[in-house]
Amino acid sequence: MGGLGEIAFIADYLAPLATHPAALGLKDDTALLTKLPANGLVITADALVAGVHFFEDDDPGDAAYKALATNVSDLAAKAAKPLGYTLALALAKAPTREWAERFAGGLSRAQHQFGIALLGGDTVTARGSWWMSITAFGEASPRGLIPRGGAKPGDCLYVSGTLGDAALGLKLRLGNAGFGQTLSPENRAFLLKRYLYPEPRLALSQALAHHASAAMDISDGLALDLSRMCDASQVSAEVEVASIPLSAAASAAAAAFPGAIETILSGGDDYEILAAVPSGHCVAFETASKEAGVRVTKIGVVAAGAGALAFLNPDGTALALDAKGFEHFTG
Amino acid sequence: MGGLGEIAFIADYLAPLATHPAALGLKDDTALLTKLPANGLVITADALVAGVHFFEDDDPGDAAYKALATNVSDLAAKAAKPLGYTLALALAKAPTREWAERFAGGLSRAQHQFGIALLGGDTVTARGSWWMSITAFGEASPRGLIPRGGAKPGDCLYVSGTLGDAALGLKLRLGNAGFGQTLSPENRAFLLKRYLYPEPRLALSQALAHHASAAMDISDGLALDLSRMCDASQVSAEVEVASIPLSAAASAAAAAFPGAIETILSGGDDYEILAAVPSGHCVAFETASKEAGVRVTKIGVVAAGAGALAFLNPDGTALALDAKGFEHFTG
Repeated sequence: MGGLGEIAFIADYLAPLATHPAALGLKDDTALLTKLPANGLVITADALVAGVHFFEDDDPGDAAYKALATNVSDLAAKAAKPLGYTLALALAKAPTREWAERFAGGLSRAQHQFGIALLGGDTVTARGSWWMSITAFGEASPRGLIPRGGAKPGDCLYVSGTLGDAALGLKLRLGNAGFGQTLSPENRAFLLKRYLYPEPRLALSQALAHHASAAMDISDGLALDLSRMCDASQVSAEVEVASIPLSAAASAAAAAFPGAIETILSGGDDYEILAAVPSGHCVAFETASKEAGVRVTKIGVVAAGAGALAFLNPDGTALALDAKGFEHFTG
Repeated sequence: MGGLGEIAFIADYLAPLATHPAALGLKDDTALLTKLPANGLVITADALVAGVHFFEDDDPGDAAYKALATNVSDLAAKAAKPLGYTLALALAKAPTREWAERFAGGLSRAQHQFGIALLGGDTVTARGSWWMSITAFGEASPRGLIPRGGAKPGDCLYVSGTLGDAALGLKLRLGNAGFGQTLSPENRAFLLKRYLYPEPRLALSQALAHHASAAMDISDGLALDLSRMCDASQVSAEVEVASIPLSAAASAAAAAFPGAIETILSGGDDYEILAAVPSGHCVAFETASKEAGVRVTKIGVVAAGAGALAFLNPDGTALALDAKGFEHFTG
C-alpha cells in the first residue's frame, strides 16, 4: 500500500482537528482570528525532533501529544488560556493511514485535554528524522504575562508536581539508568509515562495570576531554568535539595542510586511550573493551588544579588552539579 | 574554533531582530501581543528544509530571506499587513559566528523589506538537514481575508509579476535545464535570483482588498494553485497560455526549449499572486495595481461548473500538462 497524499492527509486527518472558526476548516491559505483576547495574545513556539525530543520508535500519537503539551506548558506558566496553534509537520515519506490515524489521534487527545484547536500549518518533506514545529496561542490573563524576570529577594520559590520523573524515564529508555533494575514495574511505567506525557499545569493559572511575581515552566531542568529566572530577575536563589518534591518512583530511584539526584535537578523535560511568590502571598498561593487541585511545594527562597544559585544539602553543604541542564546546542 | 552556544546565538544574533515590543526582547518564555489589530489577526505557517526548498550550499542568509518571504507572500495574498513572526530553527551542530551573521543578516534584510519583526521561537538540534519553520502574523484588512474560495463565473483571472522564473532558476541549479546553454549570463542570473528571492506583493494589498473576489499566492505552480482556487470556489477556469506574463529570461528559455512552458505553469516557487476580479472591477483593479507599482496581467476567465481547468493554446487547442504541480508528499 502506498502512502497518503498531502491533500488526503490534510482533509481526512488534520481538518477534523481544526475546530476553531479562525482555522476556516484549513480550506484557505491562512487563518483569521477575528475574536481577539481582551488582555492580549500570548505566543510561544516549540519544535520537537524525532531522535532528539522523543524516540524514533515512539508512537506518533504520543509524540504529537508531547509536542502540543510542551507548547501548552509555556502558556500555563504565563497564566494564559490555550486558544489555538499552528503545526508544521515534516515527514521523510508519505504516511500510511495507520500512522496518520495515530498521529491525529494523539493531537486530538491533547486538544481535548488542553482546550486548544489547530488553526493552520504546513506539511513538508523531511531530510532526516521527522519533526513537528508548533506555535501556540493563548489568551492573556488580566494581569498580562507572569514574567520570568519578576522574582524579588525574599520571595518563596515553588514548583508544581514532582521533578525529575521524565528525566529518569528518559534514562530508563536509554538503558543507562543505574537504578533501572531496582525499580518495580509500576515505578518504571510511571517514569516512562512522565517522559512521554507532560502535564501542562493549566489549572494553576489563577493562582499564578494572583500571587506569583515570576513564573516559567521547567523544560531544561530545575538547575538551568532557575538560573535563567535568577538571571532575568537579577537575583540569587537557595534551594533545599531535601524539599524537592519527588514521586514515589523518583524517590525509589534516588534511594537506589545517589547519582539520580543530579538527573532529577538537571535532566529536563519536567514541564512543571517554577514560581516565585512574595512571602505575603505564600499562604494564599498554596490555598489557591490546592483548590485548583495542583500540588505545589516550596523548595527555597530568592536572595539578593545577581546570579548565585545554591542547592543545599540537609547538612548545609552545597550540592555540586556536574551539568547545569540541557542546552539545545553547545559550542 | 568551536560553534556558538544557544544562549550566545540568541542574544547576539536573534535578539536584535526582535524589535517588536511584543517580543519582550526574547527575554521571556513567550511573546505578548497587547495591541491587537482591529480587523483580526491573519496567521500563516510555512517551513523550509535544506535540500528540499533550498540548496544545502545556499547562503544561510538567502535561505532565511526566502523562508520569511514565502510566509509574507501568504499575508500579501490575503491583503494583510505584516506584523511579526515566530521562528523554529533546527541545526545539526552549533553554528559558527560567520554562519550566524549570514543567517541573521538575511532575516534582517527580509524584516526591513517586509516590515515585520521576530516575536519568539525555538532553537533545536536537527537530525538531518537544517530547517526553519515560521509562523507569520499580519493585520487583516478592513475586509478581513481575501478568500481562496470567492471566485465567481465571469470573473477575470489576474497574476502579478511574471511566472515561471523561479522554477526555471531551479532547473538551472539542478543542471537539467534543456535551455541552460542558450541563455545569456544576465538571464541565468535573473532566474537564479528569482528562485532565491521571492518578492511578496505587499503593495497589491489595497487593490486586492477593494477589488478581488478571491486571491492566493502561487507557491506550487499556477496549474495546481489555480485548480485549488477553482475547487474552493466551485468554478472552472480558462487560461490563455499566450497571455501568461513571462520575463525576458523566461521568454528566452521558452523560445529555446518548448518544454519550458510546462515548467513555467507547474514548477512552483513563483510567490506571485493569483486573483479573481469581477468584470466590473477589472479596470479599477488594473489602475490600482499600476498605482501600487505592481504589474498585473489578465490571463483568463472564471467559468461556471466545478473543477475544469483549461490552458488554451493560441490555436484554441488545450495544452496537456504532464505534472499539475508540486505536492509536498505524494502517495
